Amino acid sequence: MKKQSVGLGLLGLGVVGGQVARVLTEKAETLSEQVGCPLVLRKIKCLPQDLNRPLTKELPAGIFTTDNEEFFKAPDIDIIVELIGGENPAYDYQKRAITTNRHVVTANKEVIAKHGTELLKLAQQHDVGLCYEGSVGGGIPLIAPFKHDLVANDITGVYAIINGTTNYILTRMAKEGIGFATALQNAQQLGYAEANPRNDIEGIDATYKLAILATLAFQTEVKPEDIYCEGISRIGSRDFRYAREFGFAIKLLAIARQSDNAIEVRVHPVLLPEETFLAKVDGVYNAVEVEGDLVGKVLFFGEGAGARPTSSAVIADIVYSAQKIARGISGKTRLRLDSGRSIKPMSAVETEYYLRITAADRPGVLAQIARTFGDHLISISSAIQRETENGGQSAEIVIMTHPAKEAAMQQALAELARLPVVKEVSNFIRVENV
Amino acid sequence: MKKQSVGLGLLGLGVVGGQVARVLTEKAETLSEQVGCPLVLRKIKCLPQDLNRPLTKELPAGIFTTDNEEFFKAPDIDIIVELIGGENPAYDYQKRAITTNRHVVTANKEVIAKHGTELLKLAQQHDVGLCYEGSVGGGIPLIAPFKHDLVANDITGVYAIINGTTNYILTRMAKEGIGFATALQNAQQLGYAEANPRNDIEGIDATYKLAILATLAFQTEVKPEDIYCEGISRIGSRDFRYAREFGFAIKLLAIARQSDNAIEVRVHPVLLPEETFLAKVDGVYNAVEVEGDLVGKVLFFGEGAGARPTSSAVIADIVYSAQKIARGISGKTRLRLDSGRSIKPMSAVETEYYLRITAADRPGVLAQIARTFGDHLISISSAIQRETENGGQSAEIVIMTHPAKEAAMQQALAELARLPVVKEVSNFIRVENV
Repeated sequence: MKKQSVGLGLLGLGVVGGQVARVLTEKAETLSEQVGCPLVLRKIKCLPQDLNRPLTKELPAGIFTTDNEEFFKAPDIDIIVELIGGENPAYDYQKRAITTNRHVVTANKEVIAKHGTELLKLAQQHDVGLCYEGSVGGGIPLIAPFKHDLVANDITGVYAIINGTTNYILTRMAKEGIGFATALQNAQQLGYAEANPRNDIEGIDATYKLAILATLAFQTEVKPEDIYCEGISRIGSRDFRYAREFGFAIKLLAIARQSDNAIEVRVHPVLLPEETFLAKVDGVYNAVEVEGDLVGKVLFFGEGAGARPTSSAVIADIVYSAQKIARGISGKTRLRLDSGRSIKPMSAVETEYYLRITAADRPGVLAQIARTFGDHLISISSAIQRETENGGQSAEIVIMTHPAKEAAMQQALAELARLPVVKEVSNFIRVENV
Repeated sequence: MKKQSVGLGLLGLGVVGGQVARVLTEKAETLSEQVGCPLVLRKIKCLPQDLNRPLTKELPAGIFTTDNEEFFKAPDIDIIVELIGGENPAYDYQKRAITTNRHVVTANKEVIAKHGTELLKLAQQHDVGLCYEGSVGGGIPLIAPFKHDLVANDITGVYAIINGTTNYILTRMAKEGIGFATALQNAQQLGYAEANPRNDIEGIDATYKLAILATLAFQTEVKPEDIYCEGISRIGSRDFRYAREFGFAIKLLAIARQSDNAIEVRVHPVLLPEETFLAKVDGVYNAVEVEGDLVGKVLFFGEGAGARPTSSAVIADIVYSAQKIARGISGKTRLRLDSGRSIKPMSAVETEYYLRITAADRPGVLAQIARTFGDHLISISSAIQRETENGGQSAEIVIMTHPAKEAAMQQALAELARLPVVKEVSNFIRVENV
């Protein structure tokens, strides 16, 4: 059944919600034209304190409510736009929207990462759509390519710089030689890192986004807890110096790749060859490289967060859903989960490694360390030994390995730590030659 | 009306056509699953010599024809995929497909650039779709972002490295210090440039692609002949040396940007700041940067040509069209041409300039040259003067200007050429600070 207008309900009037409301108002005419009928914002559920914001003066007073029941029972709402963020109560709100046969548009990475498959199945049963382009990478098209543009491909890998906060911190460390703590403090002062930065710097935020991308790319349900995750807090300024010497940059990378008949899904710092595109992505920008059997490598780059870029994605989803509603077409989202691929355990993953070891500065030390690697069949590709600054008491040994299994490396690391000549395994970082 | 299967007819069995036929065969099952019903390749129109290719052994013999009438009259063909390339007879074939109510999928940049608006209007009248993702940038999604992902944005600029041949030549010149002729010869030997390379090196190929992108981005019909066009053949290895000294790379850029209430559309070599992303795009790769009021800058990067990447885009369009046909949904392509924007004449365009001038090596020369710029209200931002290698008889003067109008610069150039002390204006290149 074709419709004369499409009604929207907006849940949440925070920075993104406010921006979406503003654009829907300011661009009402061109957006309606694209939909093919009026696109009408009918109801906004917000917090009591939101009612004092300047934006509320620009919209009809009756549009606002702070009451859930009033919001969900308002008539003529075809699409509910959930922009409150966080897992709860957003998850329940999305379910309620779907089970009352409303299409859902959201930018909520946590809900989609944790409950996306369940919600998509529910949406299929209710013949409505669930769109979430804004949940990953701000306004960069990252969901649509997997659902439309790259459908002819078997995706072989996804390599993503997908958390602006950590990329900003690593960029400052790389360019200015400052330490992690100082770079984090700077990021907080500039509003690029939150007061409690754990979700970003420990890689958790990146696991949400990677779960969403990997599920789409490999038609395999990937949950955040399936993803191996390491943050950036143990990276030191010395690591950047050595990395540069070997021709590498250091980035927090989210990786999903085909490997045998399984997939690897992992978020951790990596050494990337300096000449690669991802190595050149600096500051708060995001970039996602996708490898397909036909397309080769394609890369998508842009601002990965912020109210305006995210509103670009949310409104694109609204227009897409509204076009279907206006034409009386089923908005049902196709859910492809059929590959039967398993997730490879981290212990079976193979990469090259960079290691920085503090050891006693005396003859035979490098030989002992090298023997430990040899015992675990790990082959060293290059090694450098330097005196540290504490007056020749200890040496810093940096080792690059050929590809080795993570399990073997972990055993070697444990054994190295027990060697009397080794004072500390100061860091180890995986190397990706993407 | 829903359909039990969707039939395809393929026009052309060249490198791209052959690859598309192969993928449709090899991936028939997964593609049909995505369409929702069998996707069947029913007819291929090819040249007599194509019948000897190995591919023809892998497909049912009855599928091939060398006869137009047999092809166009074959039953149960819902989508005609035109992959013969060039303007004629492809243009007529597309018209015939549309007027016999078949959807069209094509990768033909020349037909779409020259006749796209007319064909889209015709397709609307016949309630069929016309898809051309493969016409620009190989498998990189470049059409879809404008039609879907970025619809909430007012696009302010499109900056594109969109011709792999010229980017390969410029990259070799930049990295190896070789001249244009040698680099072109190398590109020809490697198959990156054609025996007659004019379309690529003179920028004509880029104008086709820019016409397509600009029409979509600005909802303004832009034809190739509306686009100011300069090729790369006059760039010398000396220009790369000076550009590097000033911190710039040299690229052939296709530009469409909002400027006052008009749009600028131009293809020419530019100096780009070295630290920008586009400056780092090397070799045969393509990259398109899009600026929107909400999304900020987004960049799309990948292999811009080749049978496999192009087949990725063509098949995505086939699946998209077939999904609509299978569900009985109108495939009509929406045509938005409504902005009322005009195209700014090149004489009114304002950029910064780099100039390389060969002059007599004696006192007062730079002053005379500077005065000529001053007479035309063009302000110089920096200048260097070097002796040339011919024993001090002449000097090379390189000038960078502040923004100036093209008309003023052309007048200044003409006047410079007439100055007795000026032996030659060896080159001038516009500077873009994107």
